[in-house]
Amino acid sequence: MNFIGANILSVDQFNLDDVNTLFSVAEKMQPYATREKVTKVLDGAILGNIFLESSTRTRVSFGSAFNLLGGHVRETSDVSSSAFVKGESVRDAARILSGYSDVICIRHPKSGSVNEFADFSRVPVINGGDGSNEHPTQALLDLFTIKKELENKNRDLSKLRIAIVGDLLFGRTVHSLCKLLSFYPNISVVLVSPDRLSMPTDIVEYMRSAGLSVCISNNFNEGIKNVDIIYTTRIQEERFETKEQAALYRGKFILNKDIYSKHCAPETVVMHPLPRDSRPEANEIDFDLDSNPNLAIFRQADNGIAVRMAIFAMVLDVVNQIETSSAKVNWHVSR
Amino acid sequence: MNFIGANILSVDQFNLDDVNTLFSVAEKMQPYATREKVTKVLDGAILGNIFLESSTRTRVSFGSAFNLLGGHVRETSDVSSSAFVKGESVRDAARILSGYSDVICIRHPKSGSVNEFADFSRVPVINGGDGSNEHPTQALLDLFTIKKELENKNRDLSKLRIAIVGDLLFGRTVHSLCKLLSFYPNISVVLVSPDRLSMPTDIVEYMRSAGLSVCISNNFNEGIKNVDIIYTTRIQEERFETKEQAALYRGKFILNKDIYSKHCAPETVVMHPLPRDSRPEANEIDFDLDSNPNLAIFRQADNGIAVRMAIFAMVLDVVNQIETSSAKVNWHVSR
Amino acid sequence: MNFIGANILSVDQFNLDDVNTLFSVAEKMQPYATREKVTKVLDGAILGNIFLESSTRTRVSFGSAFNLLGGHVRETSDVSSSAFVKGESVRDAARILSGYSDVICIRHPKSGSVNEFADFSRVPVINGGDGSNEHPTQALLDLFTIKKELENKNRDLSKLRIAIVGDLLFGRTVHSLCKLLSFYPNISVVLVSPDRLSMPTDIVEYMRSAGLSVCISNNFNEGIKNVDIIYTTRIQEERFETKEQAALYRGKFILNKDIYSKHCAPETVVMHPLPRDSRPEANEIDFDLDSNPNLAIFRQADNGIAVRMAIFAMVLDVVNQIETSSAKVNWHVSR
Repeated sequence: MNFIGANILSVDQFNLDDVNTLFSVAEKMQPYATREKVTKVLDGAILGNIFLESSTRTRVSFGSAFNLLGGHVRETSDVSSSAFVKGESVRDAARILSGYSDVICIRHPKSGSVNEFADFSRVPVINGGDGSNEHPTQALLDLFTIKKELENKNRDLSKLRIAIVGDLLFGRTVHSLCKLLSFYPNISVVLVSPDRLSMPTDIVEYMRSAGLSVCISNNFNEGIKNVDIIYTTRIQEERFETKEQAALYRGKFILNKDIYSKHCAPETVVMHPLPRDSRPEANEIDFDLDSNPNLAIFRQADNGIAVRMAIFAMVLDVVNQIETSSAKVNWHVSR
Repeated sequence: MNFIGANILSVDQFNLDDVNTLFSVAEKMQPYATREKVTKVLDGAILGNIFLESSTRTRVSFGSAFNLLGGHVRETSDVSSSAFVKGESVRDAARILSGYSDVICIRHPKSGSVNEFADFSRVPVINGGDGSNEHPTQALLDLFTIKKELENKNRDLSKLRIAIVGDLLFGRTVHSLCKLLSFYPNISVVLVSPDRLSMPTDIVEYMRSAGLSVCISNNFNEGIKNVDIIYTTRIQEERFETKEQAALYRGKFILNKDIYSKHCAPETVVMHPLPRDSRPEANEIDFDLDSNPNLAIFRQADNGIAVRMAIFAMVLDVVNQIETSSAKVNWHVSR
Repeated sequence: MNFIGANILSVDQFNLDDVNTLFSVAEKMQPYATREKVTKVLDGAILGNIFLESSTRTRVSFGSAFNLLGGHVRETSDVSSSAFVKGESVRDAARILSGYSDVICIRHPKSGSVNEFADFSRVPVINGGDGSNEHPTQALLDLFTIKKELENKNRDLSKLRIAIVGDLLFGRTVHSLCKLLSFYPNISVVLVSPDRLSMPTDIVEYMRSAGLSVCISNNFNEGIKNVDIIYTTRIQEERFETKEQAALYRGKFILNKDIYSKHCAPETVVMHPLPRDSRPEANEIDFDLDSNPNLAIFRQADNGIAVRMAIFAMVLDVVNQIETSSAKVNWHVSR
């Protein structure tokens, strides 16, 4: 695909070359993401950052990525203070708000609405998550993380063995990720979920058609054996009709030091799209694993900055200008 | 009036020369508003953008206009997280917040409170809407749009025939617009509303005293005949005591392709202060008119950027520095 | 202490030298805070401004101070739209959000949680208030204001006589301020509060151990006699179990022109951490004192900008670069 001026709505729009190109740009962004250098390549540009559903990390990650490239961010994060409550259509919002910025990130509670928004926007639109449908930048940063974690262990992405665990029905990030994994026909995937929250069959078929080995299980301890990566997820409470329904499924798959030692192969990498629910009744990944160097969840969040910077730079066609506009950092850097 | 350092609180403070001066600056802003060029003339300046009532478009439009001039924006948009809930007076808020920025835009649910805020502010204050009282920048961008739409059709603003339709009682934008139209004594206005939502008599008198021909009607199909422009508006639900009361008046005046073809003169321009309420029970302007080139509502929203940039540039006295601080855009521009 | 890269969590971490160093930097910031000059020393840096509890002034003051140094601000101000509602721990939030900015300000409703956040953050953390525990930057700007107000009257900080009035139990700003005052053993303090809202005994003991004269009173008219400064505070309604409980204590200590004339020594300075509650039932400082030049509350708010700029500049180690990156202001300045 041609990234310049493109909408980023779904992982379906990428082929393997696109993803590799994006990741090579993300690698170039790392020194800026980690504050070794600064760039002002988007000085004067405006991101419209529109989150019509609860978000801190994704919203701030997009905004900071844009600031790191030198741009301004205009934010709309409170759905109740939005024009939408006055009966405005998604298409009108798109036509109007796209006159106020150079690129837009939008999260919307309703599946498909981001596509409708993009149809009427005059500037590129990046999907920040639409209902339980897609969250393409999360899937891209997840795959980028998988690639880097395996490289660090001299393992091979093309032969990845991965267990994907948790709410596979409503978890939009795992839907998108499974599609990206399908670029690699020799990957084997174990899908571990409660029966009622299993991966939609169309996505399972998608992977199998691409040649992947897919195993479906509700047995956590079995599922996480002999894999390179465990990718576990939160029960998506906000997608259930009642909190009580969500509660039925919480706390079924707790990964902790004891389970990890007993059941996992050495150096199994642990990932999570975050936030991890650390309330005792959920506790998807126990704090006792925080000191395990194979816990990759915070590196994963960090990688989001570089991947999102790369998307902005490619969509706005400034990749080749980043080096020339770079400078040294003149303040104290801690991390 | 002298714009430098002035508060922009009401259309009453302008004469025709002021408006013409402002519009000529707004024309100069167009290449920056449409991203042909960038300017950093307000690099380092801070806008305090304070919206104590629901707003997306006006809030983001002000913020983006300030960013387009190079400035920072500090925003307060959630009334419940504000100091006001701790019993702080408007005057204290003004004295304190004006120490934190170089210019302030404020929307407040209570008529007159923006004037009180301005009395105690140490920096210029721009009224972003106070209750059902005034919304001067909306009226200015409306008049700017009327002028440009007529020019494009080689018609003459001084002889404008306009139908103003909808909730004329609570719609603050039409109150302000009617005052601006009164600069032109040969304009004829048809005011179309339900009887209970008719234009306040003082504004009708204001227009008649200025020489305008004003006709009051509750007949939509008659009212929109033989005009250059239909300016239609939303029932201001939030100003009614109950939602049920507002519902009584919704959906009375639906403009659609059929009505337009049957009743309107050729090339009648359609405007709306937005958001248009597109719920079936309201549907002020049907989507079937979206492809009609005379639908000016999105050009109207776009014009808001140039007009608001002009106001900032004039109030902060940087009009003459814009050209010298301009540069080319080095990223991909879609629109 | 070494400010470079440090967390600013409590006034306990400072000694008198630290405070004096900070104040001398704050004095250097004044021309930038009052718009005589601009600096871009933090151009490209990002502040994560996270307010998980109601705030306008402190939040905007931190953000504007960072903008005045040239940096970007990414804000999270709505607790309900935060990842915390999805069960995320404070420590995870700290690890993740600290990857998105160069320094973080955080306010949190729970005492001690800001310290926990700082323990896991990879960038410096500034406490913007944690429950009824601490609010160190408020205490610093208060002491800075006391110092400047006394200097203007040729009085001596080391011999200050001060009355601290109001909700001394829940008012975190007075807790922090009392500790800073304890650097000066010859200060005499009168603590005036309802019996049930008196200063915690550990803080009284802290001051007495440092040599200060501390008098505890519930008699307002007596307490404000013969002091240089009255520092009065708001009943912290949000810390009470019910609004009705808070109401019992409101309006007990109203300072107005009449009381001031009758009971205060000439030129007694009046301070308040703001917002002042101006509802008739509270009315801590009546509007009839607003014209009294000894009312320092708005100078106090203004001083917050310079003090917070100084903290950012010291923590990020750019104090020595401010002059070299300064420029003249090229827009109209009102104040």
